[in-house]
Amino acid sequence: MSAPVYATPEEAEDAFYRAFEKIDLEAMMSTWADQEDIICIHPGGDRLVGRVEVRESWRSIFGGGVKLTFRRAEGVVLDQPEIRIHSVTEEISVAGSGRMSARVLVTNVLIRTPAGWRLWMHHGSNPGSELGSDADDGPAPTLH
Amino acid sequence: MSAPVYATPEEAEDAFYRAFEKIDLEAMMSTWADQEDIICIHPGGDRLVGRVEVRESWRSIFGGGVKLTFRRAEGVVLDQPEIRIHSVTEEISVAGSGRMSARVLVTNVLIRTPAGWRLWMHHGSNPGSELGSDADDGPAPTLH
Repeated sequence: MSAPVYATPEEAEDAFYRAFEKIDLEAMMSTWADQEDIICIHPGGDRLVGRVEVRESWRSIFGGGVKLTFRRAEGVVLDQPEIRIHSVTEEISVAGSGRMSARVLVTNVLIRTPAGWRLWMHHGSNPGSELGSDADDGPAPTLH
Repeated sequence: MSAPVYATPEEAEDAFYRAFEKIDLEAMMSTWADQEDIICIHPGGDRLVGRVEVRESWRSIFGGGVKLTFRRAEGVVLDQPEIRIHSVTEEISVAGSGRMSARVLVTNVLIRTPAGWRLWMHHGSNPGSELGSDADDGPAPTLH
């Protein structure tokens, strides 16, 4: 079966979250650009570069078997002809629980490739996970 | 004094880190696009949108008076005519200490504006700050 072709960045991003919700590794990888410089940073995680590392991380996450539901909120978009940057808040709940269990700040970068629109980067972070180094600390010896 | 015009994304990014090292708020803000949709996410922090919120965060950080030195490593770049995305590791040390005190994963987005190249987004995150929700947890009930 050939990989789907996403005609718009929205389609590619929707497919990314659908694959995440279905814990479908092949569908997930079909939303990523076929390039060795793709980047995925899971919240609190290290940077993963290239299809092998990115795929392995999703295999590991999906191996947990937990089905999640994503709601995307508070989007800010930068649109250009070949690229879309989407800053968005993921409101994540365990499927069926009805309760939000995590809030993740995400930068999704989608690019137009010969095979349609694909993810180039997914960078997530946990708000409220400062390691003694955040702006909110005020005049304490904050780092960044 | 009129704001400097950065002819390349590299110049704008270099100026961003120079302003950070000099704890110079006006210089820092001159590296950001004059747009109300600029985005700054400090490591572990919430998302700040627009020049007022972004400026206030730097004022707060710089108010701590701690001088830092940045080394940028492991860059991965996506270049387009009007935009550059730079994924980079910030190795941060307190100036003069000679020891690295923090490692931050950063996505910097630079755009070409009528006033030259400027920052549109700075998204930082702390690797190793998982809140029980990371890929490395393997088959535990990981979220993301």
